[in-house]
Amino acid sequence: LATSFSSLAAHPNLVITEADVAQMRAAIQQPGRFSDAFHKMQTRVDKEIAQPIRVPVPKDGGGGYTHERHKKNYQQMYNAGVMYQLTQQAKYADFVRDMLLAYADLYPTIGLHPKRKVKAQNPGKLFWQSLNESVWLVYTIQAYDLIYNSLSQAQISKIENQILKPVALFLSEGQPSTFNKVHNHGTWATAGVGMAGYVMNQPEWVEKALYDLDKSGKGGFIKQLDVLFSPQGYYTEGPYYQRYALMPFVTFAKAIDNNQPQRHIFEYRNGVLLKAINTTIELSYAGLFFPINDAIKSKGIDTSELVAGVTVAYGLTQAPGLLDIADKQKQIILTGDGLKVANALDKHLEKPYPFSSIAFGDGSDGKQGALVVMRSQLGGDQALLFKPSSQGMGHGHFDKLTWQYYDHAEEIVSDYGAARFLNVEAKYGGRYLPENTSYAKQTIAHNTIVVDETSNFGGDVDLANQHAPTLNYFEAGSFGSVSNAEIRSAYKGVLLQRTLALVKLPELGQSVALDIFDVNSDDKHQLDLPVHYQGQLIDSSFVIDVNTQSLKPLGQNAGYQHLWLKGQATPESGLARVTWLNKNGRFYTQTSLVSGDETFLFTQLGANDPHFNLRNEQAFIRRVKHTSNHRFISVLEPHGDYNPGKEYTLGATSNVQTLDVHQQGDLTLVNLKMAGFSYLIVINQDQKPDANLERQFT
Amino acid sequence: LATSFSSLAAHPNLVITEADVAQMRAAIQQPGRFSDAFHKMQTRVDKEIAQPIRVPVPKDGGGGYTHERHKKNYQQMYNAGVMYQLTQQAKYADFVRDMLLAYADLYPTIGLHPKRKVKAQNPGKLFWQSLNESVWLVYTIQAYDLIYNSLSQAQISKIENQILKPVALFLSEGQPSTFNKVHNHGTWATAGVGMAGYVMNQPEWVEKALYDLDKSGKGGFIKQLDVLFSPQGYYTEGPYYQRYALMPFVTFAKAIDNNQPQRHIFEYRNGVLLKAINTTIELSYAGLFFPINDAIKSKGIDTSELVAGVTVAYGLTQAPGLLDIADKQKQIILTGDGLKVANALDKHLEKPYPFSSIAFGDGSDGKQGALVVMRSQLGGDQALLFKPSSQGMGHGHFDKLTWQYYDHAEEIVSDYGAARFLNVEAKYGGRYLPENTSYAKQTIAHNTIVVDETSNFGGDVDLANQHAPTLNYFEAGSFGSVSNAEIRSAYKGVLLQRTLALVKLPELGQSVALDIFDVNSDDKHQLDLPVHYQGQLIDSSFVIDVNTQSLKPLGQNAGYQHLWLKGQATPESGLARVTWLNKNGRFYTQTSLVSGDETFLFTQLGANDPHFNLRNEQAFIRRVKHTSNHRFISVLEPHGDYNPGKEYTLGATSNVQTLDVHQQGDLTLVNLKMAGFSYLIVINQDQKPDANLERQFT
Ligand SMILES: [Zn+2]
Ligand SMILES: [Zn+2]
Repeated sequence: LATSFSSLAAHPNLVITEADVAQMRAAIQQPGRFSDAFHKMQTRVDKEIAQPIRVPVPKDGGGGYTHERHKKNYQQMYNAGVMYQLTQQAKYADFVRDMLLAYADLYPTIGLHPKRKVKAQNPGKLFWQSLNESVWLVYTIQAYDLIYNSLSQAQISKIENQILKPVALFLSEGQPSTFNKVHNHGTWATAGVGMAGYVMNQPEWVEKALYDLDKSGKGGFIKQLDVLFSPQGYYTEGPYYQRYALMPFVTFAKAIDNNQPQRHIFEYRNGVLLKAINTTIELSYAGLFFPINDAIKSKGIDTSELVAGVTVAYGLTQAPGLLDIADKQKQIILTGDGLKVANALDKHLEKPYPFSSIAFGDGSDGKQGALVVMRSQLGGDQALLFKPSSQGMGHGHFDKLTWQYYDHAEEIVSDYGAARFLNVEAKYGGRYLPENTSYAKQTIAHNTIVVDETSNFGGDVDLANQHAPTLNYFEAGSFGSVSNAEIRSAYKGVLLQRTLALVKLPELGQSVALDIFDVNSDDKHQLDLPVHYQGQLIDSSFVIDVNTQSLKPLGQNAGYQHLWLKGQATPESGLARVTWLNKNGRFYTQTSLVSGDETFLFTQLGANDPHFNLRNEQAFIRRVKHTSNHRFISVLEPHGDYNPGKEYTLGATSNVQTLDVHQQGDLTLVNLKMAGFSYLIVINQDQKPDANLERQFT
Repeated sequence: LATSFSSLAAHPNLVITEADVAQMRAAIQQPGRFSDAFHKMQTRVDKEIAQPIRVPVPKDGGGGYTHERHKKNYQQMYNAGVMYQLTQQAKYADFVRDMLLAYADLYPTIGLHPKRKVKAQNPGKLFWQSLNESVWLVYTIQAYDLIYNSLSQAQISKIENQILKPVALFLSEGQPSTFNKVHNHGTWATAGVGMAGYVMNQPEWVEKALYDLDKSGKGGFIKQLDVLFSPQGYYTEGPYYQRYALMPFVTFAKAIDNNQPQRHIFEYRNGVLLKAINTTIELSYAGLFFPINDAIKSKGIDTSELVAGVTVAYGLTQAPGLLDIADKQKQIILTGDGLKVANALDKHLEKPYPFSSIAFGDGSDGKQGALVVMRSQLGGDQALLFKPSSQGMGHGHFDKLTWQYYDHAEEIVSDYGAARFLNVEAKYGGRYLPENTSYAKQTIAHNTIVVDETSNFGGDVDLANQHAPTLNYFEAGSFGSVSNAEIRSAYKGVLLQRTLALVKLPELGQSVALDIFDVNSDDKHQLDLPVHYQGQLIDSSFVIDVNTQSLKPLGQNAGYQHLWLKGQATPESGLARVTWLNKNGRFYTQTSLVSGDETFLFTQLGANDPHFNLRNEQAFIRRVKHTSNHRFISVLEPHGDYNPGKEYTLGATSNVQTLDVHQQGDLTLVNLKMAGFSYLIVINQDQKPDANLERQFT
């Protein structure tokens, strides 16, 4: 790889280049999305630069005044810098210049932040932790680059020597353990320092940012690209964190590409960065990310980080599906790529994003389990998420082999997500609630097996991080999608193996979700398999013994202490149906094939919740006691239409007439009769056949 | 009034006239909404007339095959008749003709319906009850009128003599008690018979439809107009039933106006019919009707009955606000008025509907209490519904002086509505659930005082129908809206008097809802005042003793048996705050001024609910025991913004600093300090002052 770049670099030349600026200046003279976005931003920036510049001595930790002020400052400098380039009006450059000079006056006078955490390896100076300082540098170095040409040599000298270079050195040489760390914090640090290297002509900084302080390649941006994403572009913490992690990757990569195109950074590792952007999109449904691990449910494709990612990706690929996402994001970025997106949307070049059924390998090698998405557009937009993925570090949940199911724009079989009211002071200071640990992370909060009322790995994160499930196969074809995975380590001596399929039944104009969960062990255990359903219980094929006069918690530990036991039943051998009505107006029936030994426990969340922190969601739990081997079999079927507004109700009852499952060697044979149509579904459990799923219609 | 009309009437001349048809035929040649609606309907009708005609011998009750078939038949005949007029294609007329001839063959052979209710006064022949038969006639006589000109004299004779005239006679002379009844069933019957009179040249039928079979005016359509609506156009059962009741009124009135314009039917009683249409609109929020009495919540302004009403009203008034409603309804009717609506929407003539703050008098005289709507657009679209109205007959709830509050498109303080899953067989046959009586109708299910754990009037509907609250005053002005009402009869020896105000605070850019509820009696009672809040409890200014390990019902009767008691607290003297977060992303704080004697009970719905019929909603109930006089004082305040998607939370805590209330003779003085602003709100409780509400800003 070439490592040199011009010492007389043009400005700007990070995410935005001189050539971009010329086109952007022309574009704001024409009506259209780009011009609209420009005028909106200009109104905002004009208000901001009318305020006095405030660069306070650092004092407060996260959320406090000086913390928030310094965060606002870098955003305002960046936006004013863009305005300067687009309008060539001095007032914008002057604002950035004066603020930078104020920082240059302040920075040499301060030491480590007074609110830094004791013994923390990553204190900041402007902020309590260096992560914020790295983000500050990523924005500020771009702002500086944008107004560079307006500065005198004396101003350049003061700003570079008293603030920008000291910050860059503090974040690199000053904190080697963070800078070299293969972790999201390291990405922000290397991005800031590397971009500072381009702008201030320090090729060595760029080398160190890319390949570790010692240039060994053991740390640095390239190593992060090697390790933090799987070959398919999946980030192990899940989409909620992936979209956040993307930001410094995309920003720095774009700056690298503009300064040193010969590095072909976007092609690195078979284009892993573009894959990561697309994976983040693929891990969404109805605009929201699948809520796995500590995810807050309202995050979706319109987050600013993914707007940046989609914009850069469109600039590189001109893929019309990305325009569809950009259109839904409703935000145009004022960059060269943003202009391309705006122009293309003005011309209505967007096409539906081609969401697919896909298994995203987990881990750097893609072999630490996988996150599997199955989709069907038969009779509505359905998604089935199967999660035989690795733990996903500290924010991971003990949810091995869980699934989620979506239909007609809503959650149907759901995950609680994170127990947190972000930034709401009254709710545990806005941090993760105690119930995030005591409930949301626990296995019982998920749609997967709990053995003996304990969570996977006994709830031990370190242990969990060492063991991933094995994806035995995944296949998607014209019949639908099927996947099988197993894990032996979640519970000592217990093999959990699950087969999930989203089977298309074109004769009925719909799909069904088939679930076969095998548990095998030497000893006898209690097995619980919950279905966290979203909606109002409508009917069951068996009588439920309901606790009408008193409620007690289902258990005392591992999340069970939060579940009120509302009722129970042990259906007779045969088909046991539970039907609920979702707010999307459709009915859903889970039909289980039981042999009289499964007890159904109906629960409601909210016990041992002294601060009303939990949402009052519902579940039913299939329980088998004293068993060493059990196969849980069920099919989930959407049906009907409830429309009280138009005063009609159609198809409120299940269409499943017969469900039989037999095993013949590697073949699982499922006889399913629905609405008069008989199907034989054959699943080949051998791990490498030509086709795992076949469907015969008789 | 003139009573004659031409015996050589033109056809068609009911809702659609010859002149309308000429314009409609031209319109379908042009692009636009009308043409779109026509083509959509034509596609549907073409499918329907391709099916064999089925006129089965009546056999099934409501929901059964023959019942549904005869309902479909009249709709199909009507639509095919319209198609005939618009296209002049014989196939459409032939379809209607053949079906009418089939009915002419069938009708003379059948007696009363086999599934008629025993001892019912209103059996049908084609249907189990004559209400359906009346609706059949309303549609069918229009279909006949639309194809009349295509028929031979022999066909006319057979159809009129063997089906249309016999049905009209059966519904009038054959059922005098229903026909003359001042009730919605009577409206359908008189509409059908009266329209048959116009089409078949029977002026006497029209007279009887308008003025009772004996033409005394004691019954009939005119009497219904006098009695069923209040002078302001309010129908005592509430908007859910009002929009349904509107249909025959609007249809018959339009036919009267086209045949006998000299009757000035739409001007009758100061234009009560137009008022009734507008009142139905005014009684909606965010497109849905206020759910009072046995209302299902998803009904709103897009119901077909209100589409018909708005279309006729626009034809008469050309009010641009009605176009706004029509635009949201997204349905164009194929009539002359429908064409006017379509053309105006094509030209974008719509203006926002001018929703207002208004007290709708209840009862024929407008003095049986009132339904009060207060609105404010300060800081969002807010509505406060105050309900000192009469019982509203059999579908009424025991909810005297209750209120509901709406903000930012959502319910905030809510009413349960009806406990019913319409047409869902598994839920009690789709009828009103037992819990509709045991919970939804009960006083505790509402946001009003319950005395001694019993409902208003001891839950006796007949008694309740005899007593209405008194509206003492209502005023709306620049300061906001205020109203006061009382009732002495809901509980023996107890005077309930409530003042509700929606006060605008422009300095804060918002409104607050002020609630002062006075209870006075000679004896000591237990008083409960619930707030059924929609959202997640966020915080309270006092510690709640939460039942974490066991839940019990709050009581045993009058709806209390359905409430789990989740926790309780008795806040110290001063301000007691409860804050919740609604799904619209805003916080709501109810601040109560207490003197240490009010206990707050936190409840969740769902006890004694063996079939999972109830939604699991939340409430807190302020309780005072052993008291003869108590004033409940509170203010409800929207605040802040919770946006986890964009990762910010603003204003999660209440801005109320001081709340003091003093009485000086007729004047209620409220000192309210919020976010540093001090207000003195003066409410003059004298019933006839110039201004009831004043607000001083200090
Ligand atoms: Zn989870
Ligand atoms: Zn009610």
